[in-house]
Amino acid sequence: MRVIADLCIVPMGVGPSVSPYVKEIKAIIDASPLNAEMHANGTNIEGELADICKLIEECEAKLTSLGVPRLFYTMVFGSRRDKEQTMADKLAAVS
Amino acid sequence: MRVIADLCIVPMGVGPSVSPYVKEIKAIIDASPLNAEMHANGTNIEGELADICKLIEECEAKLTSLGVPRLFYTMVFGSRRDKEQTMADKLAAVS
Amino acid sequence: MRVIADLCIVPMGVGPSVSPYVKEIKAIIDASPLNAEMHANGTNIEGELADICKLIEECEAKLTSLGVPRLFYTMVFGSRRDKEQTMADKLAAVS
Amino acid sequence: MRVIADLCIVPMGVGPSVSPYVKEIKAIIDASPLNAEMHANGTNIEGELADICKLIEECEAKLTSLGVPRLFYTMVFGSRRDKEQTMADKLAAVS
Repeated sequence: MRVIADLCIVPMGVGPSVSPYVKEIKAIIDASPLNAEMHANGTNIEGELADICKLIEECEAKLTSLGVPRLFYTMVFGSRRDKEQTMADKLAAVS
Repeated sequence: MRVIADLCIVPMGVGPSVSPYVKEIKAIIDASPLNAEMHANGTNIEGELADICKLIEECEAKLTSLGVPRLFYTMVFGSRRDKEQTMADKLAAVS
Repeated sequence: MRVIADLCIVPMGVGPSVSPYVKEIKAIIDASPLNAEMHANGTNIEGELADICKLIEECEAKLTSLGVPRLFYTMVFGSRRDKEQTMADKLAAVS
Repeated sequence: MRVIADLCIVPMGVGPSVSPYVKEIKAIIDASPLNAEMHANGTNIEGELADICKLIEECEAKLTSLGVPRLFYTMVFGSRRDKEQTMADKLAAVS
């Protein structure tokens, strides 16, 4: 199941500044073969839902190993069957 | 990776009334072994993230077979390592 | 603009257990005239979007006064023009 | 209440291709004084929550006038009191 997702990971219980953790997440996403683009509120990722779930589990394992006791995630995603569409296609269609 | 999730599935391109599709989603979730509770804006589900992803793929396959051309999903979820917590625990803690 | 919303408020920077803060949020929502129902991952609220925004500002002010340095919110909401619909109507349509 | 938000508007009941409606939303956001950046899954906006709510109402009014019978919205947003932070600051902190 191919999707275009907007993923946001929120470390809880570690103080208000979470950029060290977001850098770790960014490194994991950058190292994955999935096409991804970070923006100010999350990261857009395109790929198989199962692969994105595995990526989330990697992020969870890494942040847990760094002592983050609780994590909150938001993921908004879409799929379509009427045509193939990439993240670039979506932006091109409205500009 | 055990999570408590709030899942919402939005069928696009099929008219404004989507309750026939939500009934199909409900039947799939009810038939799964995952603990789940529907509410007015989605369904709370607790279980392994990978199992919830499989459930989403089942819903996608069913709705696609019924002719839904595009689907939009929101999933908000949380995990914690400092203690085990169920959906019932979460509600009990604040009431 | 009348909506049915699913609101979740996540206190950041205050430790992994946030139930004392969620209780404060619940008290503010209970005291408001808006129709609302808490569930395991948030609270469903129906009313004017502007009124829900005011409620969010009240929650933000209260939690800030209690020392929460950072807050993360998710709000998923819907409106429809083809017919009037309450939260109870939504649930009844699929059961 | 100043926030950095990620807003996504999903037109329902109008067919699977919604780019004509997203273009209308983009025009309204571009014409507003709020700082905003569109990405593949939504638009990041920084400003007062009340101003963002007014922007949403403008989008709702426009899309309704174009015949969209039902709209679904997701808005993820954050505020912080420990320091001022812009969208550009957020990205700079993790790159």
